Amino acid sequence: MTSTSPAPVLVLVPGATGAPVDGGALFHLADATVPQLSVTDLVATRGDGVFETIGAFDGAPVNVGPHLARLARSAAQIELPVPDVQVIAEAVDAAIAAHAPVAELSVRVMLTRGIEGDGVPTCWIHARVSDDWSPYRSGMKVAVLDRGLPTTAAETSPWLLQGAKTLSYAVNMAAVREAKRRGAADVLFRASDGYVLEGPTSTLLVRRGDEFLTTPVSAGVLAGTSVASLFTWLEKEGLQGREELMTVEDVAGSDGAWLLSSTRLAAPITHLDDAELPVDHELTARFEKVLAGQA
Amino acid sequence: MTSTSPAPVLVLVPGATGAPVDGGALFHLADATVPQLSVTDLVATRGDGVFETIGAFDGAPVNVGPHLARLARSAAQIELPVPDVQVIAEAVDAAIAAHAPVAELSVRVMLTRGIEGDGVPTCWIHARVSDDWSPYRSGMKVAVLDRGLPTTAAETSPWLLQGAKTLSYAVNMAAVREAKRRGAADVLFRASDGYVLEGPTSTLLVRRGDEFLTTPVSAGVLAGTSVASLFTWLEKEGLQGREELMTVEDVAGSDGAWLLSSTRLAAPITHLDDAELPVDHELTARFEKVLAGQA
Repeated sequence: MTSTSPAPVLVLVPGATGAPVDGGALFHLADATVPQLSVTDLVATRGDGVFETIGAFDGAPVNVGPHLARLARSAAQIELPVPDVQVIAEAVDAAIAAHAPVAELSVRVMLTRGIEGDGVPTCWIHARVSDDWSPYRSGMKVAVLDRGLPTTAAETSPWLLQGAKTLSYAVNMAAVREAKRRGAADVLFRASDGYVLEGPTSTLLVRRGDEFLTTPVSAGVLAGTSVASLFTWLEKEGLQGREELMTVEDVAGSDGAWLLSSTRLAAPITHLDDAELPVDHELTARFEKVLAGQA
Repeated sequence: MTSTSPAPVLVLVPGATGAPVDGGALFHLADATVPQLSVTDLVATRGDGVFETIGAFDGAPVNVGPHLARLARSAAQIELPVPDVQVIAEAVDAAIAAHAPVAELSVRVMLTRGIEGDGVPTCWIHARVSDDWSPYRSGMKVAVLDRGLPTTAAETSPWLLQGAKTLSYAVNMAAVREAKRRGAADVLFRASDGYVLEGPTSTLLVRRGDEFLTTPVSAGVLAGTSVASLFTWLEKEGLQGREELMTVEDVAGSDGAWLLSSTRLAAPITHLDDAELPVDHELTARFEKVLAGQA
């Protein structure tokens, strides 16, 4: 972002899991340029919270309902109090309305376990101009990295929090740094039993002929909001989208693959490690329109 | 803590990785009762940082050097700028000096990747009266929980950050909640290849006759500062401490086992799942004196 970018907007949401104790507003604008978090908030001492990132295109947020439903599921997985998704949705709207009009906005919804000992979650919405994702959207090299866990971990060991979108993302960030060392832009995680999973901040989509495939949620990946949108659209187009466990070789030998996210939209994979994949820029452009809510 | 506990002390350390850009003090006292962190600090958005917890007993901190050396190693593992451990050590002393005198103080040293885009780590020291760990020190039940990863992960997949003390501890916290559901007080993690590892916030110590064993650091556990202190002391007593890969059965059939930490000190395991272990309270009391720096 240059210094002339519009200022980010911060909305604090003391009513995210119920009415604020002091009877104040459920949410309110706050100054994003001054500190707003306690050093004893469990997000700062333990990475203990959950989040969503919602894309807003020409001021219109996409998939708010599915994002906040997933936030509630993530919160349940780490045993946070149940968030009031209606209040949070209104706070998201307020953040977007308060931001200068821009083509692409990235809206983070954060819910933490709150200040140690208080038992009251902290919630805020932070809206800012999206990073420039055009290099990713034009095609990117992806490194396959071991995630260490088997695809069965979500079922056998729920405390490993597979499938929860938590604020403990240090491993995800380390994986992206490792990919960059390897000359790649992003990561596709592989489970210890050999199946591919997801990216550190994205969902895998693979084309095989007229079929579009993604990793089963039961394998411990996040339930992607973007892939759900695409599958709905593909059905209308007479094509099929479904879950399937795939190996690295399945993806490398496919008719195309993408990493999907709410802000980057559809980023086609040009190379999976050293394997070159076909890229359909026209189809990618159609995916982008769908994911930006403009199809 | 009751409301009559002495107030926690906060020291901000803008000079943790070099002189502050504004030429101000390397560290200074700050008000712990008001927000001090930005919502865009990467610790709040990604759990992206490292930490240490140092115990101070009757005002004397224990193992400051080893703790800060480990902080520097953790920082290197996640590719943070190199911390100035001398500055941080002085800030730790300042925090302890500013706190009301108490028997047991828990001193957290936090180092984060800082505000997104700035590239300047955030560092703070937070000193507060320790929790009452006496129920743990008198003996506790421990649940064995799968950590999902093999003991080889630290070597094969460094991006999984095994052995780094990061602020992405949501899984560690979820594991403790699972243990409590099982009627246990704490957790012993087991690797996917069957060997025991460490606790979510502690190091394993196992007695076999006159030998004292702990998990090899190469298996992906933190290099425990407490176990290092005990091994030095054991040697002086003519006993041996060393690393060894152990199974759950090895621990269950041992002559005693403890989870060690800088604030809880030596917590003897009375039961590992359903297996009862012998507890030597006299030896535990001697361990506590060593770990509190009072041997």
